[in-house]
Amino acid sequence: MTDPTLPNLSRLRGFIGDFTRLVERRGDDEAAILDSGRGLLAGLVALDDWLPDAYAQPDPVHYRQYLLHCDPHERFSVVSFVWGPGQRTPIHDHTVWGLVGVLRGAEHSQRYELRDGPPIPTAADRLPVGSVEAVSPRIGDVHAISNALADRPSISIHVYGGNIGAIRRSVFDPLTGERKPFISGYANSALPNLWDRSKPVPQAA
Amino acid sequence: MTDPTLPNLSRLRGFIGDFTRLVERRGDDEAAILDSGRGLLAGLVALDDWLPDAYAQPDPVHYRQYLLHCDPHERFSVVSFVWGPGQRTPIHDHTVWGLVGVLRGAEHSQRYELRDGPPIPTAADRLPVGSVEAVSPRIGDVHAISNALADRPSISIHVYGGNIGAIRRSVFDPLTGERKPFISGYANSALPNLWDRSKPVPQAA
Ligand SMILES: [Fe+3]
Ligand SMILES: [Fe+3]
Ligand SMILES: [Mg+2]
Repeated sequence: MTDPTLPNLSRLRGFIGDFTRLVERRGDDEAAILDSGRGLLAGLVALDDWLPDAYAQPDPVHYRQYLLHCDPHERFSVVSFVWGPGQRTPIHDHTVWGLVGVLRGAEHSQRYELRDGPPIPTAADRLPVGSVEAVSPRIGDVHAISNALADRPSISIHVYGGNIGAIRRSVFDPLTGERKPFISGYANSALPNLWDRSKPVPQAA
Repeated sequence: MTDPTLPNLSRLRGFIGDFTRLVERRGDDEAAILDSGRGLLAGLVALDDWLPDAYAQPDPVHYRQYLLHCDPHERFSVVSFVWGPGQRTPIHDHTVWGLVGVLRGAEHSQRYELRDGPPIPTAADRLPVGSVEAVSPRIGDVHAISNALADRPSISIHVYGGNIGAIRRSVFDPLTGERKPFISGYANSALPNLWDRSKPVPQAA
């Protein structure tokens, strides 16, 4: 039985199973996780038929982050980031590996290098739908992301090497470089129930 | 920072971490899982400060089952069962191991043996708050549970050796023993977000 109006939760459920197996196998081999994880995330964002609307809602003022799944041992988390038109993150770090896959719209990524004084802009990229970018303390951990579209929301799916909403990390003043402590939390107190297989499953595309 | 009006989600989060480690270590050693799992579940239901109200709501007509957590590999699930006054399950099986821990109120458990004809009642037990009962195909898998209280809801927390809402199992006609296929599903399309540690955490009791 299929209903094309229902989100195809089996896609996210499969991704979570696959990513759980990846961290079980590769543990803290960050390079291996980013390498294989990039492929898994590219597969997840290749089709936009699975994200429930509740986790795709922009806020009028700020970008939003909705937790979709946290590994029970907090080895990784999966988060839906929603940017309204003109919205952007502060300049921030992660302290763990992270993968950003664009599901809807387009995003702009600006990377920074930290020295004394203001953060120094380095690579800038436009991230189209389907693209995946990686960050980590090893490969470059400081960036700001913004919606590249002026007329509609953009959404990306992020995977991090920890429970990102609970990690003590930093934001940086763009003019002075001053570092401020930051724990992001999540916008949502309820997660999608991916496990009710008694509900109709939409046809996989 | 503590707020006694907020559910103490850290208790459920800790239980899920502990139970995940248990199934990782013991795999399909059902006796070992029931033995250690019974202690973990007794610890979870020993204090009634953690279940969010959304997963404690009775339905006017039928008992309800709310998924609280499903293991990403579907090795186990944790479910809140809420019985209004007078409500009961049909006679049913599970096909996997299960643990029932009473969190609030009191329940009545009636076990059955299956032969030709109507199910044969065997052990009957009143399950007070804090008690834990086990079922499985090995130790006896067919029972019916009802609210033992006529004037208020009772709630028990169940743990099963699979994604119980998705498992093909059976209910049995009490008069004829006729077996009918049954996939229970879940009452909820959203799960509690246990992972936002940026929220105030209530004082552990
Ligand atoms: Fe970031
Ligand atoms: Fe049962
Ligand atoms: Mg007895």
